[in-house]
Amino acid sequence: GYGRFGLNYNDGAAVGMSKTTVDMRMRLNIDGSVETDSGVTFGGRVRLQYDEGNATTNTAPAMLYVSYEGIRVEVGNSNTAYDSAALMYNSEIGYTDRGAGDPQGAFLAYNSGPYGDGIDCSTGTCLYTPANDESNRMGIMASYSVGDFNVRLSYINPDQTVKSSTLPVGVKAETGISLDYTFGQITVSAAAVQNGAYVDGNDQYFLGAEYAINSDANVGILYFDNGDFTNGTGLDEGEQVTLYGNYTQGAITYKAYVSNWDNPNFGAGMTDTAYGLGLDYDLGGARLAADIHRTYAKDTVAGLGVRFDF
Amino acid sequence: GYGRFGLNYNDGAAVGMSKTTVDMRMRLNIDGSVETDSGVTFGGRVRLQYDEGNATTNTAPAMLYVSYEGIRVEVGNSNTAYDSAALMYNSEIGYTDRGAGDPQGAFLAYNSGPYGDGIDCSTGTCLYTPANDESNRMGIMASYSVGDFNVRLSYINPDQTVKSSTLPVGVKAETGISLDYTFGQITVSAAAVQNGAYVDGNDQYFLGAEYAINSDANVGILYFDNGDFTNGTGLDEGEQVTLYGNYTQGAITYKAYVSNWDNPNFGAGMTDTAYGLGLDYDLGGARLAADIHRTYAKDTVAGLGVRFDF
Amino acid sequence: GYGRFGLNYNDGAAVGMSKTTVDMRMRLNIDGSVETDSGVTFGGRVRLQYDEGNATTNTAPAMLYVSYEGIRVEVGNSNTAYDSAALMYNSEIGYTDRGAGDPQGAFLAYNSGPYGDGIDCSTGTCLYTPANDESNRMGIMASYSVGDFNVRLSYINPDQTVKSSTLPVGVKAETGISLDYTFGQITVSAAAVQNGAYVDGNDQYFLGAEYAINSDANVGILYFDNGDFTNGTGLDEGEQVTLYGNYTQGAITYKAYVSNWDNPNFGAGMTDTAYGLGLDYDLGGARLAADIHRTYAKDTVAGLGVRFDF
Repeated sequence: GYGRFGLNYNDGAAVGMSKTTVDMRMRLNIDGSVETDSGVTFGGRVRLQYDEGNATTNTAPAMLYVSYEGIRVEVGNSNTAYDSAALMYNSEIGYTDRGAGDPQGAFLAYNSGPYGDGIDCSTGTCLYTPANDESNRMGIMASYSVGDFNVRLSYINPDQTVKSSTLPVGVKAETGISLDYTFGQITVSAAAVQNGAYVDGNDQYFLGAEYAINSDANVGILYFDNGDFTNGTGLDEGEQVTLYGNYTQGAITYKAYVSNWDNPNFGAGMTDTAYGLGLDYDLGGARLAADIHRTYAKDTVAGLGVRFDF
Repeated sequence: GYGRFGLNYNDGAAVGMSKTTVDMRMRLNIDGSVETDSGVTFGGRVRLQYDEGNATTNTAPAMLYVSYEGIRVEVGNSNTAYDSAALMYNSEIGYTDRGAGDPQGAFLAYNSGPYGDGIDCSTGTCLYTPANDESNRMGIMASYSVGDFNVRLSYINPDQTVKSSTLPVGVKAETGISLDYTFGQITVSAAAVQNGAYVDGNDQYFLGAEYAINSDANVGILYFDNGDFTNGTGLDEGEQVTLYGNYTQGAITYKAYVSNWDNPNFGAGMTDTAYGLGLDYDLGGARLAADIHRTYAKDTVAGLGVRFDF
Repeated sequence: GYGRFGLNYNDGAAVGMSKTTVDMRMRLNIDGSVETDSGVTFGGRVRLQYDEGNATTNTAPAMLYVSYEGIRVEVGNSNTAYDSAALMYNSEIGYTDRGAGDPQGAFLAYNSGPYGDGIDCSTGTCLYTPANDESNRMGIMASYSVGDFNVRLSYINPDQTVKSSTLPVGVKAETGISLDYTFGQITVSAAAVQNGAYVDGNDQYFLGAEYAINSDANVGILYFDNGDFTNGTGLDEGEQVTLYGNYTQGAITYKAYVSNWDNPNFGAGMTDTAYGLGLDYDLGGARLAADIHRTYAKDTVAGLGVRFDF
């Protein structure tokens, strides 16, 4: 697991709200596994996680897996192919690993808290979960690695106890695929997801490439089609291009990104270009990091904190 | 702890429901103990468990114990004497260890999730818990082992904060006893429980015997009087006889059971005889298992999956 | 962590309630930490705890910390300076470490369960939490130790997401300080807390001294000003003086305390003097303990049980 804590500043805080808050997370992965005589590994994971603003430390639904050489199959609270795509989050900066260069569409990932957590269908914002109850969610992800090539396939059923024809209108299982390959100094990655976050027709695509200029410097470009919330709302989430780079000099790593999000739903006060600068300082076992961003909402957001893995 | 996952098929699924689902469980026992200079062990256990269909991994109430040589006393979320009886579950098959040969009465056991979990008194199905709140449950089990002889006594109070005369009408503490003895190739087991699952007069009895034909083959017979739900409903749960056997040949173990349940409450579409066939394949550290059953509801239920302990 | 269980007797139990109950707790601290090359330690803690009467084992919000030589800073579910004051709880006796000599005012401490747990604003007893939701609580404690001197400062914000001017009337952040010093056979301790348990003006003070007569005997005196619940109720919690002592003879430790609480709100049937006698027997890895008390409510409370650390 890991821990991180620090200060977060947001000049876009609403009236009466704090611009500066303490941000923290503690994550504990409790794993168990066994290897059979023939070399097949069976295992599982339960996660405990606390984030500031939570009433207590949450448990996550379990993920079980079987792996053999380059093949791995996960069931339950599995990872997803789209969220696991290489490079996708490489533009992140700061002790909380964040940034406007991340994909802005809605899709599923490994769930770090209870299913259905944080989604309130009663207020009309429940676009993509079956009736506020995701308890019968069942995910499967298969991945295969050979040399520097990886491929992943995932299928997340919002309610495995009912036939797909019984699901509410506009709700479908999410399917995803991702591939990546590294040759020399170049890494390329591609991914697609259908019915992202269970929303029928919310299909998203990703292409990315990173070039290692030398052992201390990298640049990358990411393209996202962020899909459509077509489940009754007609929201097109638009396309997005992110450029990023980083450079390490001794204990210090400089990072930067800029992202252009062509979102047809942006209203007044929004801009289509966001960017950020980050600086990491290696403490030799922990990482002190500062980040500052200009967001799509034209707010300035900054952070200063530490991240450590144990 | 352990993990298990696989496919479950039930041809009795209702209209619109899936006949095939993924079944999974991950169980983690977190134990702590200390041994005193005089050889007395004090310890405790908290369980984390996830089953498919749950919104997240549940914690269980803690059980504490003290043991010294063959004597052991558990308090809190203790095991129960009836549920701990030898042989009682030996007819189970498949990766989920299930079967219609298990006792069909209602009685208490170690609780793998929160107290009161899954019981909804508001809908009128709350036959045996005090007002949907089992928080003040307090269990005690004492056991004694000498050589091949074991005896257990348990007492589970539904609400230790009130006098027994203050409990709702029809609700009483559950008391149980079980004994078993192995002599050579034969094991015999007997158990009784009074006020099973807190239901006044819901008394149940168990007798079982198993014969080890040789090191690779066993047969057994189990008798259950499954008690009565007399708490306002008058339901007699009937008597039940289970026959089972298993045979191991190299990595493969064949298993079978048949159970006759003389249930006076069976309606149309039910039958009093259920049976099942199972096959385990030892993976050397994990177990691949298949099971198929004909249930009391005349449904065909089958499973294929893996179980591993870590 | 640790476990403890035993019997608790209270002759003041209401009609229909049990005078004797089983008391138990299991506490598990799950810690993670890392030390950097320069000797700074970063770490965190999540606690799992079960007490009798709970529906299940609770998780607690996480606490993260950084420490370097004698300096330590905690964030999140931090300890508090007042609750961490030396000597404050030294008059406690029995396997549950309790007694009427403890401070009777309301102030915050490390939270062993979910934030907001056990506080019901809907019934009008919510004097000191913001609208029954403490999720956005954020605590910070800094401590410094040099030789036999310790000092601690803490600041607990009831809702870090809003400006202090936005908090409900009468609700303020709790601030605390504590200092202690040991010179030879004498330890002295002092502490203060402002806005205890977020109640504006609920300021409390503590002074204590302990004298080690020899390696087997200690006596101490504690003074508390227990503050005021001024948040709409005007309750003055009064002043309190506690005397205590203990004496060890081989495996047995004798303990006693008497406390005088000058509480202006005491009604009929209450007395201002409470006292207790305790006896510990060292089992060499566990502790068997008996305690008997005369409470401020003139009830006799007694306990007999065991406590073990693992």
